[in-house]
Amino acid sequence: MTTETLTAERILEATEEVLRRYGPAKATVVDVARLLGVSHGSVYRHFRTKAALREAVTQRWLERTEITLESITDAITPGGAEKLRGWLMALFEAKRHKAGDDPELFATYDTLARENSGVTETHLSILTSQLTRIVEEGVRAGEFTAPDPHRVAVAVFAATARFHDPTYAPEWQKPSMDDEFSAVCDLVVRGLRT
Amino acid sequence: MTTETLTAERILEATEEVLRRYGPAKATVVDVARLLGVSHGSVYRHFRTKAALREAVTQRWLERTEITLESITDAITPGGAEKLRGWLMALFEAKRHKAGDDPELFATYDTLARENSGVTETHLSILTSQLTRIVEEGVRAGEFTAPDPHRVAVAVFAATARFHDPTYAPEWQKPSMDDEFSAVCDLVVRGLRT
Repeated sequence: MTTETLTAERILEATEEVLRRYGPAKATVVDVARLLGVSHGSVYRHFRTKAALREAVTQRWLERTEITLESITDAITPGGAEKLRGWLMALFEAKRHKAGDDPELFATYDTLARENSGVTETHLSILTSQLTRIVEEGVRAGEFTAPDPHRVAVAVFAATARFHDPTYAPEWQKPSMDDEFSAVCDLVVRGLRT
Repeated sequence: MTTETLTAERILEATEEVLRRYGPAKATVVDVARLLGVSHGSVYRHFRTKAALREAVTQRWLERTEITLESITDAITPGGAEKLRGWLMALFEAKRHKAGDDPELFATYDTLARENSGVTETHLSILTSQLTRIVEEGVRAGEFTAPDPHRVAVAVFAATARFHDPTYAPEWQKPSMDDEFSAVCDLVVRGLRT
């Protein structure tokens, strides 16, 4: 037993470390407990099943991106094109960073995200609702035209999939990606302009 | 030996049939020869290696889509938005059809396309050059603004990846896809308008 209190957050940190070491197929609750120096019963008191633990660690990973993008969405800057570009760029950068810094952990989380489709759907709907707010703000500022901001936000998200869908991670390090990103951004922003 | 002349086209048809039956991992040149009732030496006279045969059958599969889209590209209709939408729709329909009608053969060709990256790159550059011509035509007609038509064509192709990249094939049968496609098309076409 360690002297620190066993919090859900500490368990999730340890789970990430175990996933990093053993990969999603082999990581077990016993490995997590061992790393923390506690019994696996103590872990189960926080997360009732292995599935619940995997879901929680996936959610935590996805939330980090949501929080970064939330601060851009809520920034008190003139809404519209500049904020939209900033948001799309931050999303691409966050994903590219995660994928480039630790490709194995990224692949692990991609596997987990596919397993936990409910968590992933929530994540995608949070990102789409942030985008919707940016579009609405641009419309209010007279910079954008969008009869249905949510529909347009879904379209913007789909149109930029190449720069945030983990499927494309192997291509993100290509030198041509930045220019391609900026060409797609230009097209999308022009498509929203009044 | 059959009485028909053994042409490259007949070999490629038989290869497709063998791929359909056994999948890309198990299909062999001997299977192709057996289906045609010829010796495998006769097949090798047309395709020097198994790799050359797999490359040729992949190219044939991709060319079918190119030919369909070529006729839209070359049509003597007013260029611009209408032709662009028609081209994108035809691409989506062709891929969705192939994937929906025979998912296993589609998966097989997806595997082959990944193996034969040179053939795939040529395919993508043919499609991008068709798109470039449509954009250029729209610019000449005064309907589109595009300082660099090729760059914009690459952006349009990237922005619509969700509707032609085989990675997304499992989602193409969703009822929401048609509306999503039309929302992305609207956005892209607006982004090109004068």
